Amino acid sequence: MRKNFGSKPWVYPQPVLMIGTYDENGKPNLMNAAWGGQYGGNTVMLCLSSHKTTDNIRLKGAFTVSFATAATVIPCDYVGIVSARQEPNKMEKAGFTTTQSEFVDAPIINELPLTLECRLVKFNEDGNVIGEIVNVSADESILTGGNVDHSKLNAVIFDPTSAAYIRLGEKVGNAFKDGAKLK
Amino acid sequence: MRKNFGSKPWVYPQPVLMIGTYDENGKPNLMNAAWGGQYGGNTVMLCLSSHKTTDNIRLKGAFTVSFATAATVIPCDYVGIVSARQEPNKMEKAGFTTTQSEFVDAPIINELPLTLECRLVKFNEDGNVIGEIVNVSADESILTGGNVDHSKLNAVIFDPTSAAYIRLGEKVGNAFKDGAKLK
Repeated sequence: MRKNFGSKPWVYPQPVLMIGTYDENGKPNLMNAAWGGQYGGNTVMLCLSSHKTTDNIRLKGAFTVSFATAATVIPCDYVGIVSARQEPNKMEKAGFTTTQSEFVDAPIINELPLTLECRLVKFNEDGNVIGEIVNVSADESILTGGNVDHSKLNAVIFDPTSAAYIRLGEKVGNAFKDGAKLK
Repeated sequence: MRKNFGSKPWVYPQPVLMIGTYDENGKPNLMNAAWGGQYGGNTVMLCLSSHKTTDNIRLKGAFTVSFATAATVIPCDYVGIVSARQEPNKMEKAGFTTTQSEFVDAPIINELPLTLECRLVKFNEDGNVIGEIVNVSADESILTGGNVDHSKLNAVIFDPTSAAYIRLGEKVGNAFKDGAKLK
């Protein structure tokens, strides 16, 4: 038997996207968002309402997308519930430091080890942000043999059904391969 | 130090979206997709290239989105690598059975316990599928106290950096709450 819940925003799971931007004074800002994803082979989509971040994206034509980790859950949640409009020192309070991207006019958050560096393509017909991924950078601390190692990244997801952050566990299969066992 | 990887489709992590549709003869089909996400408060976005599934979505104006689980990794991967155009009996080979949604003209996959039942809104300006979530249904086997319990759902994610399926682990925080500790 199934239980019906009506219309709920329950794509499962959702990423914890950490959106980095610069404001008109070059001051870095960071917010989080769970509504978004890969939009094409080299593009991302973000569904954001009006924020300091959306002002900044329009101004600079650029943003970064990093991913919350188990070690940074508290500051990553903090920057999502406190606006730079109310707390100008939110980055310092969160303990985040930044380095300018080599590729776009947006900040890399030093404490978040995997980052998509994006150029704004447009706000699309539904008002969502579409960005081209110009470069992906990863801190050496999460690499094994030169590749990103999920067990070192230690990303978390957002569970929309309970509003919890959940860490990833172990690998259970190989995409594009395991299904061949049924052929 | 950071390593640059160039432009990579590495939104992290990605959901394993299982897209259910009916064809012109009412035959159910299922494919998987990692590129997509919550697009608005009651809408989802799917980035699909041309598939039997996209033909079916256009035809019926409806689809379901379920989520791969640790117990179903092999058949969920299988339906992603084998097309209904080549293997008409892919659903049977995968071991999936279906029940028609009460709300839209699309199949619920009985073996996948959480499902968004969607009405096609449009193919948007970039060719992506936008669907309205009309209802979410969950099998009673994944409920605790009437709510979806992530530890029973046992969803997996797609790691784009290694093409692995990874299960979720334990809860590490509370969204919209933990950040208040820094206020």
